[in-house]
Amino acid sequence: MEAAQIRSSLEAFKAKGLKLDLTRGKPSSAQLDLSSELLALPGTADFVAEGETDCRNYGVLPGLPEARRLFSGMMGAVPEQVVVTNNSSLAMMHDAIVFALLKGTCDSAVPWSQAGSIAFLCPVPGYDRHYRICEDFGIRMIPVTLKDDGPDMDEVERLIAQDASIKGMWCIPKYSNPTGAVYSREVIERLAAMPAAAADFRLFWNNAYAVHHLTEERIGIANILDLCASRGHANRPFVFASTSKITFGGSGLGLFAASKDNVKWLLTRLTARTIGPDKINQLRHVRYLKSEAGILDLMDRHRAVIAPKFKKVLDVFDAVLGQTPDVKWTRPKGGYFITLQVPKGHASRVVALAKEAGIALTPAGATHPYGKDPEDCIIRIAPTFPELTEVSSAAEGVALCVLAAIAEKR
Amino acid sequence: MEAAQIRSSLEAFKAKGLKLDLTRGKPSSAQLDLSSELLALPGTADFVAEGETDCRNYGVLPGLPEARRLFSGMMGAVPEQVVVTNNSSLAMMHDAIVFALLKGTCDSAVPWSQAGSIAFLCPVPGYDRHYRICEDFGIRMIPVTLKDDGPDMDEVERLIAQDASIKGMWCIPKYSNPTGAVYSREVIERLAAMPAAAADFRLFWNNAYAVHHLTEERIGIANILDLCASRGHANRPFVFASTSKITFGGSGLGLFAASKDNVKWLLTRLTARTIGPDKINQLRHVRYLKSEAGILDLMDRHRAVIAPKFKKVLDVFDAVLGQTPDVKWTRPKGGYFITLQVPKGHASRVVALAKEAGIALTPAGATHPYGKDPEDCIIRIAPTFPELTEVSSAAEGVALCVLAAIAEKR
Repeated sequence: MEAAQIRSSLEAFKAKGLKLDLTRGKPSSAQLDLSSELLALPGTADFVAEGETDCRNYGVLPGLPEARRLFSGMMGAVPEQVVVTNNSSLAMMHDAIVFALLKGTCDSAVPWSQAGSIAFLCPVPGYDRHYRICEDFGIRMIPVTLKDDGPDMDEVERLIAQDASIKGMWCIPKYSNPTGAVYSREVIERLAAMPAAAADFRLFWNNAYAVHHLTEERIGIANILDLCASRGHANRPFVFASTSKITFGGSGLGLFAASKDNVKWLLTRLTARTIGPDKINQLRHVRYLKSEAGILDLMDRHRAVIAPKFKKVLDVFDAVLGQTPDVKWTRPKGGYFITLQVPKGHASRVVALAKEAGIALTPAGATHPYGKDPEDCIIRIAPTFPELTEVSSAAEGVALCVLAAIAEKR
Repeated sequence: MEAAQIRSSLEAFKAKGLKLDLTRGKPSSAQLDLSSELLALPGTADFVAEGETDCRNYGVLPGLPEARRLFSGMMGAVPEQVVVTNNSSLAMMHDAIVFALLKGTCDSAVPWSQAGSIAFLCPVPGYDRHYRICEDFGIRMIPVTLKDDGPDMDEVERLIAQDASIKGMWCIPKYSNPTGAVYSREVIERLAAMPAAAADFRLFWNNAYAVHHLTEERIGIANILDLCASRGHANRPFVFASTSKITFGGSGLGLFAASKDNVKWLLTRLTARTIGPDKINQLRHVRYLKSEAGILDLMDRHRAVIAPKFKKVLDVFDAVLGQTPDVKWTRPKGGYFITLQVPKGHASRVVALAKEAGIALTPAGATHPYGKDPEDCIIRIAPTFPELTEVSSAAEGVALCVLAAIAEKR
């Protein structure tokens, strides 16, 4: 398109006065409707779990046995290594860091807060909420490149082996936020095997999209718990997940899995914090999801709702941006995001232009530590929440803004 | 009773082979049954809260507006000063301390963890879970005497005024765990007005039994938030409560109220931890409890279940222990506990004898910091959980154990 044509197309778009939002990875109403049944469960006469536990009362810190079993496949762990808690796996990640800061892990000589300046490796692009926790607690963030098959392992191995101040590493191993990258077996094997200078180094393995497929292929990844155990690093991974994007974003279950020693450590810490999780919500989920097959079946129905939205964005980008140099985007096979890469120095301008056109995008830079993308080229697109027609309009608007931003600098 | 008679009575009791538990302040099944309706709420078509919030999705960090309003009377605060979260007010207390340790309060020059050795005042007897948090994080505990009208304020004022290392004080101002003490207006006014050496001193005001009356008299206490504000110490109190003993022990709502600055501080900290609480459970509670009148009505029904259990214990103690020197017990007008005081040096032995007789009691010392009652004379009795007939047997057994322990040393 010529600059004049771009300008007039964008003006025409603005004139529609749309209000569109592609910012956050939220389930849409249609997705939430899939689990309406949960809203009336477990029912007035159903409150007794295995072992004659009255779910209405206090206790059962690790979660209901049937809930730990239900999610054990998804977590890649035996039920005894799974802890089921209240909504928000982010809260569990936050708390794991808080506990390590104040008390140390089960392998720490001193609490992390007394170990001098500490750092986390951050594959980029990545998830802003991970970075926020580090920033809040003054944990240095060291970016490493996230490739299509996982983080750049040469870089990771070199850093982890030599720098004992690196205590953790954020990983979203499957359908990564925001690129959709899936860690290869080789990458996961190297993460499990690599020597670490810090004896209490931890992988924060946020398997947020374990069953969140966008194609018929249910991609599996290597089991980090098993691989770490077999390489003599059983305590290395903390595995997190939740049902926030399986059942309800706000009222799901948080999930944790780790080695026996790590689970013991977590439960000791949680003992000071609470007498137990919301077991009724666990029972509710057990009754509704029933089995791992039930989870996968529900996820197929999610896919039916959201895969067309992803396709719509990709179709629009193909049509409008297909010939534009230095502009590319991911074609994720799962997860909640498309990453749009624009020419260096253009991402902020695209986001600003989109805002003028009535489209809210995640701030440029949010995918990087400290909110700063040094190349200003990554934009995260979240197509799940708006209706299909809105997604289509929004994608068109964004594509026009990309062309306009490039035209401005030409 | 003669020693021989005591011994034979106790042997006869043991021969019954009972298994009784007076350890924890847990609601009984009959109490939980009062709220069975909650188990099917909000219902499959009800998920939209005020402001068109879809409760199933992410967000609304401070809690639903209607939930904040529902509990504002009980919390003694305007709705904007109330934060409603997931189950477990203990978790909120824990987290408030964690946040202060790692980041400081909104009045702290440095985080508490960097302020040298810090301390909390602990009115004794008190609640073991409060002490556990302090012990876990290495916060020194300074006991102060809890009298019938609240802590010994001369002692409190003296310590708080001179010792800047004292950052907090645990208070259960109404129907205190375990003595049932109710803080008088004078005590509360002095707590609000007293000068504190630490600018970031906080009252951890655990109003756990705000509406948990055992008599027809609904005892009110002075409003700590208002009094502190009027004395220039608006940020002093953190007020906590929950619905754990209103609806379900394991699946209630945690409640927090404080000054505007404190609420802002908490929400900033929570922003790093979670995207929001379980709003469906909040909606469920709003639909079920409806109003403050609804809460009070429900609490009347709790009272009908548990007041007879308290009466049974008191009747047995009156009958069996009424003439025993240096043995006394509280007659609480609310809350969940009776405190039994035995002659110095006898409490542990009573608990041990009770165990032999099939009665589980909270370990002697649990009501004191570090689990150590220096006079070994306080026993906490929790009559709510067992059935009425069991409570009666258990009280008889405990009374016999008191007599037996005294007889042994005579």
